[in-house]
Amino acid sequence: MKVAVLGFGTVGAGIYEMLANAKGLEQGPVLVRPGKDDAPFKRTSMEAILAEPGVEAVAEAMGGIEPAFSYAMAALKAGKHFVTSNKALVAAHGIELAAAAREKGVGFLFSAACGGGMPFLHNLSIAVESDLIVSLGGILNGTTNYMLDAMQRRSLGYAEALSDAQRLGYAEADPSADVSGLDALRKIVLSAAVAYDLLPVEGLCHEGIKSITAEDVKRIQARGLSCRLMAKCGPAAGGKVYAYVEPVLFPASAPECSVLDNYNMARYEGKCAGPMVFMGQGAGRWPTASAVLRDLDCILKGRLHMLSPACHEGSADNAACCHSYYVRLPSSMSGCFEAKSYSESDGVSELITKPMSVKAMHELAARLRGEGASLFFAAVED
Amino acid sequence: MKVAVLGFGTVGAGIYEMLANAKGLEQGPVLVRPGKDDAPFKRTSMEAILAEPGVEAVAEAMGGIEPAFSYAMAALKAGKHFVTSNKALVAAHGIELAAAAREKGVGFLFSAACGGGMPFLHNLSIAVESDLIVSLGGILNGTTNYMLDAMQRRSLGYAEALSDAQRLGYAEADPSADVSGLDALRKIVLSAAVAYDLLPVEGLCHEGIKSITAEDVKRIQARGLSCRLMAKCGPAAGGKVYAYVEPVLFPASAPECSVLDNYNMARYEGKCAGPMVFMGQGAGRWPTASAVLRDLDCILKGRLHMLSPACHEGSADNAACCHSYYVRLPSSMSGCFEAKSYSESDGVSELITKPMSVKAMHELAARLRGEGASLFFAAVED
Repeated sequence: MKVAVLGFGTVGAGIYEMLANAKGLEQGPVLVRPGKDDAPFKRTSMEAILAEPGVEAVAEAMGGIEPAFSYAMAALKAGKHFVTSNKALVAAHGIELAAAAREKGVGFLFSAACGGGMPFLHNLSIAVESDLIVSLGGILNGTTNYMLDAMQRRSLGYAEALSDAQRLGYAEADPSADVSGLDALRKIVLSAAVAYDLLPVEGLCHEGIKSITAEDVKRIQARGLSCRLMAKCGPAAGGKVYAYVEPVLFPASAPECSVLDNYNMARYEGKCAGPMVFMGQGAGRWPTASAVLRDLDCILKGRLHMLSPACHEGSADNAACCHSYYVRLPSSMSGCFEAKSYSESDGVSELITKPMSVKAMHELAARLRGEGASLFFAAVED
Repeated sequence: MKVAVLGFGTVGAGIYEMLANAKGLEQGPVLVRPGKDDAPFKRTSMEAILAEPGVEAVAEAMGGIEPAFSYAMAALKAGKHFVTSNKALVAAHGIELAAAAREKGVGFLFSAACGGGMPFLHNLSIAVESDLIVSLGGILNGTTNYMLDAMQRRSLGYAEALSDAQRLGYAEADPSADVSGLDALRKIVLSAAVAYDLLPVEGLCHEGIKSITAEDVKRIQARGLSCRLMAKCGPAAGGKVYAYVEPVLFPASAPECSVLDNYNMARYEGKCAGPMVFMGQGAGRWPTASAVLRDLDCILKGRLHMLSPACHEGSADNAACCHSYYVRLPSSMSGCFEAKSYSESDGVSELITKPMSVKAMHELAARLRGEGASLFFAAVED
């Protein structure tokens, strides 16, 4: 099967190179920006890609929503299989892409969009055929895991940890989607679509790691705890799902704490299969390209879809998910929380809240920040 | 697709029940022993199973090599897909079964035979299509992991840990294949066949946990280490593979030490994808049945094979794998090893050897035991 590649950056070039040695697959043309067509296999328009004889599949690695979405629809309408590592694209247009693929009888897979090298969505999509998914989630963003790990094991400050991650190529020049939790949120949205036939587009909550400071790390470590950025999802009442991203504090013996550097850990719990955990590199040229190649192999062998025809857009509801939170905030605002433990030093308070809903915590944090508060919060794993 | 089930024990009954709710699959007849056909869906002969109208696939969960092998060949020759959780069967006859399946254009998958609920072989078989597998292995036997964990975290003796495992249904009435390491060895043999097109039938080494005592556990813990039974495999010179099972001592911070109870951890490292780790329940009714159902779903979607046509029987070679070992043995025999550290108490010696080959260690242990020595050894993870 000849595969065209859209984009020739880190991931696109990796896909192109891996195609040379993959069984059953062959290198097709590569779409690049005008002026960048410095090799005979490069093309500068989507029309030229689709006009190329023998191309049966298109692998997209451009990133961004447009023109990736237009190109994806053009490829599908031309009867080409479409595989992507672009989580923003699938979170925004997954349902339309899946419908277009079904209409033409071609494949649409996006394993690489969640967990990079880890075959998480692939296995989840198989598990749902015969098992019920009780819950899913994990450490889905390698950049923030790298930063949290560097702050905790190497005592770096936030800015240092970020520039380290950028130097190593783990963080984008604009890291805002990573550090805000939005990247992990998009991944959990895709997982919800695969596991629960519902792609949540509202009611979601996400808190990243932008508020954590070196002092917070010291305070957390003094409690014998360690912080990870976790994405969580599961079924909620009324045919909805819960789906959110937030920092979580774990005891040092928790398996999450053994996820170091830029590694990811994704997990689902099947009613029959029990807990199933995947660990690997969530990003980077070769891990991501490997995931795209695995999807292409699936299409070659006949597995064409990850989203069922029943999958639809809908709402998340995080009002029924309750746990305690660790909150660091100005002492003047500590009265806004019902605390079960409390300490204060130099005008800064640390407290552990009584169990409260994810929705309430995220809303309250937004309100207090709107009032000018510097505040960090993290769920406390019981 | 209507699926017949061979065997109605723990796993067989689980498969039958899960078939009732699996998309695209339906319950077929079940083969039971003569006299046990107490329900209309039960049959007592393989002929009756194959004569049943509409059966397209057969899932075997009887265990043992015969009559499972004869039944498998009969099913394949009758043009039925064949799926099994029986590692002894596939380790002994995998090549013949794969050839028979290809000849008839039907599927032969055995994910559940290695790692139970974990989709290890499935993902490995996809990874090899586009990536090179640098190494693979892990904690592949839940019974021995349960026992080692109970001896180390709960200070049980060996006999107590074993009877606990039997009471919980983790260990068979005859646990010899588990505690000798043979069960884990069979699983690593299957993994080698998938990853390297070579099913090793000789040159293998396996050491289980039969020699470990409560005193050994105390001595290991005094060193700040923890013991796990590890299976390891990778490419070796001359088109061979290395493949062995032995206890390994890890520092407490190693991810292997977070694998508790009867959980398994399997790992492969792809040249491109990097390290990929799977954790889950390796055995038990529902995890194993889930794995069988996933294989059936793969067949339904068109993925029919885990073994390539090039896969053949061959030899393992463990002479080039070298590391240090911890050895506990009678002091009178300690001169048989080149030690880099040594201690002695009451006629019992503990030593750390200089790096030596897996083959040499296993052979020397066999020789010394032949001379009557009580001896425990474990690799030391550097």
